[in-house]
Amino acid sequence: MNIKSLIDLNQLSQEDMKEIIELAGKIMKNPHNYTDYCHGKIMATLFYEPSTRTQMSFQTAMLRLGGKIIGFDNPQNSSVSKGENLKDTIRVISGYSDIIVMRNSFEGSAYAASLYSRCPVINAGDGGHLHPTQTLTDLVTLSFEKGRLSSLTVGLCGDIKNGRTVHSLIKYLSQFKDNKFVLISTPELQAPQYIKDILNASGCEYKLVDTLDEAIGELDVLYMTRIQRERFANAEDYEKQKGIYVLDREKLRKAKADMKILHPLPRVDEITIDVDDDSRAKYFEQAEYGMYARMALIIKMLESPDRSVPSKVESTHKAHCNNPKCITSTEKYLPDLFKESGDMLVCKYCDDRLLV
Amino acid sequence: MNIKSLIDLNQLSQEDMKEIIELAGKIMKNPHNYTDYCHGKIMATLFYEPSTRTQMSFQTAMLRLGGKIIGFDNPQNSSVSKGENLKDTIRVISGYSDIIVMRNSFEGSAYAASLYSRCPVINAGDGGHLHPTQTLTDLVTLSFEKGRLSSLTVGLCGDIKNGRTVHSLIKYLSQFKDNKFVLISTPELQAPQYIKDILNASGCEYKLVDTLDEAIGELDVLYMTRIQRERFANAEDYEKQKGIYVLDREKLRKAKADMKILHPLPRVDEITIDVDDDSRAKYFEQAEYGMYARMALIIKMLESPDRSVPSKVESTHKAHCNNPKCITSTEKYLPDLFKESGDMLVCKYCDDRLLV
Amino acid sequence: MNIKSLIDLNQLSQEDMKEIIELAGKIMKNPHNYTDYCHGKIMATLFYEPSTRTQMSFQTAMLRLGGKIIGFDNPQNSSVSKGENLKDTIRVISGYSDIIVMRNSFEGSAYAASLYSRCPVINAGDGGHLHPTQTLTDLVTLSFEKGRLSSLTVGLCGDIKNGRTVHSLIKYLSQFKDNKFVLISTPELQAPQYIKDILNASGCEYKLVDTLDEAIGELDVLYMTRIQRERFANAEDYEKQKGIYVLDREKLRKAKADMKILHPLPRVDEITIDVDDDSRAKYFEQAEYGMYARMALIIKMLESPDRSVPSKVESTHKAHCNNPKCITSTEKYLPDLFKESGDMLVCKYCDDRLLV
Repeated sequence: MNIKSLIDLNQLSQEDMKEIIELAGKIMKNPHNYTDYCHGKIMATLFYEPSTRTQMSFQTAMLRLGGKIIGFDNPQNSSVSKGENLKDTIRVISGYSDIIVMRNSFEGSAYAASLYSRCPVINAGDGGHLHPTQTLTDLVTLSFEKGRLSSLTVGLCGDIKNGRTVHSLIKYLSQFKDNKFVLISTPELQAPQYIKDILNASGCEYKLVDTLDEAIGELDVLYMTRIQRERFANAEDYEKQKGIYVLDREKLRKAKADMKILHPLPRVDEITIDVDDDSRAKYFEQAEYGMYARMALIIKMLESPDRSVPSKVESTHKAHCNNPKCITSTEKYLPDLFKESGDMLVCKYCDDRLLV
Repeated sequence: MNIKSLIDLNQLSQEDMKEIIELAGKIMKNPHNYTDYCHGKIMATLFYEPSTRTQMSFQTAMLRLGGKIIGFDNPQNSSVSKGENLKDTIRVISGYSDIIVMRNSFEGSAYAASLYSRCPVINAGDGGHLHPTQTLTDLVTLSFEKGRLSSLTVGLCGDIKNGRTVHSLIKYLSQFKDNKFVLISTPELQAPQYIKDILNASGCEYKLVDTLDEAIGELDVLYMTRIQRERFANAEDYEKQKGIYVLDREKLRKAKADMKILHPLPRVDEITIDVDDDSRAKYFEQAEYGMYARMALIIKMLESPDRSVPSKVESTHKAHCNNPKCITSTEKYLPDLFKESGDMLVCKYCDDRLLV
Repeated sequence: MNIKSLIDLNQLSQEDMKEIIELAGKIMKNPHNYTDYCHGKIMATLFYEPSTRTQMSFQTAMLRLGGKIIGFDNPQNSSVSKGENLKDTIRVISGYSDIIVMRNSFEGSAYAASLYSRCPVINAGDGGHLHPTQTLTDLVTLSFEKGRLSSLTVGLCGDIKNGRTVHSLIKYLSQFKDNKFVLISTPELQAPQYIKDILNASGCEYKLVDTLDEAIGELDVLYMTRIQRERFANAEDYEKQKGIYVLDREKLRKAKADMKILHPLPRVDEITIDVDDDSRAKYFEQAEYGMYARMALIIKMLESPDRSVPSKVESTHKAHCNNPKCITSTEKYLPDLFKESGDMLVCKYCDDRLLV
């Protein structure tokens, strides 16, 4: 593995992924061998929007490696609120720390940070855009719970349209052999075109399904997510449909004995609590796999030979990204960076597309 | 000592208490021997309501043992506010950590947490119900400052009716030989019946007294607490009476030369500041004893052979606790658990009683 | 170096400063030699007002020395908000920790804390009064970037009237040989009389200048600070003048090739972002030097032979300080302490003067 910062899971080759999964397995087996691995190293967790779960997972991972933590989770309390720009914060903090973990509500913010950081940056969520370590967690969980990342029939249930987590998992798993996808949602919240394009391009079988009940019997994996109340057309639709996407003991009866239930957590009520005692429920274990996945990732990143110091970055095009959620809309000094894709420009920060 | 979680001080036998006190003494004498005792271990401090003092005392204790800390003190910033239930939080965090310290405003919350936790839980205050490590701190302080936990005349001054700390201390000390209690308060804020029942059952001498002045001369220990302004019938009563329960140099003149003054802190104005320079004032030392007491407790708990993994818990009765402050009133999935006591049911979470 | 607490940079002799700078240099060269220097030691960072930058710099310094951190940065969440006085907090926390770093908006608060603390106290900013480690950072930066603290022509640009940082730097540098000062500001925001008095007394050359443009050519060092919008007489003046005190590439053309640009950060817009790529820009390095400076300071303070335990402090005079921002105005139990200076009394907390 030779990457400096991890912004997008697509940076990791299947070989990289295999290495991380193997290392996570070694750590699980002999955690004591890694107790002082990061002795003397510092991780900065910069959470511009609070996310206790993700932050604690990273912090625990670093602490279990013998490292130390600085950071903030309450930007109202920080210099940030005094108007400091992202670049300055990153320049200073990357002088203090050996690795930065950042969450920020603007899309592309982690990529922007990586342009100025002296040390590796891990994207812990940049708005609705990317959250690579959640998907890494899911893959490590599947790998240990199912023994493989291929030849799986994977059901994804909930808000398929807006779910960042779901999109990312589909994208990564579609690269492996013989995976099938069953996308379970209301017609309004089904997969967006670009996800269908990816699935079609990869040659993976997939189908769109209306109810959990009709799909559950054939699944090797059921990945549950929440449908937010406000995504439904109206309160009436919500009341009528919500039960259809709630996993309970009743629906579980039809599932295979070795199906595994995953959920990124926190759950609200999309899985009833009595399901927790079913041996197929793996969402709490998933959180623990996430810790080991992050430990392995931290080790791999600190070992990565890429130690380049960032130099001045120049704009690649004269265009400017139109996405109001893109980090370039708020941090005005950022260079305009695009990849060309046919007659479109793709923003390097937020992946939004612009007609030339 | 063989307990997995510490919810209620009554779980500790006198033998357990003796062990903890001895260990605290050893740590005080040779703190450097314990600098790496918890190397590689993680404590999670989950403070659903803020309490800087208690949280810092636990954190310091763990850090002085070479352990590490994760946690939160600002639940508005955490997933909790996104509606995650206690069980899920505990299931995940107990996969990250080796010991959990929890404060929560609902009664019985620490017990509820212990039902689902993979690691030991220490109750750092569950509403007005229990706060065992405060009483542990008081007992360790008495033990080192007076050399004994028996044959003491203990004055308790302030709000005897509502003071969780005061009740717990009386309960524990009443088990030892020849202790006498002098309860100093207004008639409205005197000891509740259940405390008198405990004292009567234990055979301890006790008396109720109206003024600090008339009681102070005979005391070996004076435990001061605050009377909150709002506990008085009206502003006039407050103004008239407040001075009677304030310890100052004048009142201290009548006290024995070896009386010890304790206070759980923070104080407001129930002890005047010039008393701090009196050699009998031990409330700041008490805070330091509290750190050593917690260090000893953490060691004992991590050494405890009880490493059982929680299994499914079933309701013991069909009844449901009526106490609106009980954790079962807000976390609906919790099983209904009661002990029978004559024709009453006693809630296992909050100790509230229910007629069958 | 033999001081217990660092409240004011003037406590440090030139010899002390030399020692700190040398030690900072050694740490920079071989950080790994210091990784466990503070093993088993605890720093408490008590931030009564938030300052993420300063707090992280101290925390990083302590962590890089192998120490541990307790503290708060959110006094709304702490016992403080329940009305605990500073003395009690300090008495308790200094029983938990080996060194205290404190920021508080009242002037003289760090000095007040040092009267009651069992362990060393470092002033991390007491209102608009003192912030010694910022100036220490500036001096360490100059020392490494210019190779000397004397024979420098130092430009200071921005709000010279109110800038705590600027005053402190002038005071300290004026003690060294052959330094010249160029004070660049609007007439309204120029140096106060007491700064001119210090410069005159020291025999240093200095001049007051209206524009950055006319001064920049002769400078060895340019220390930029922000002029707050609200300091200008009116919005019109602000709009007219603000550009005059903004450093940009255009103005930089006239500067010497080896001039160094410093800024205490966070910047707002007083230095344009394209200046960051100029090799003379040293403000990000300055933040890193600040970390090393604090590491050296912590070591020196923990090695200091002064380990005195505070005893009762009595008022020196019957007068009382009139400064409403002085810590004595809010913590009423503090003794009245003054130095005599002619027919004036100088408050030992806040340095305010009182006619006898």
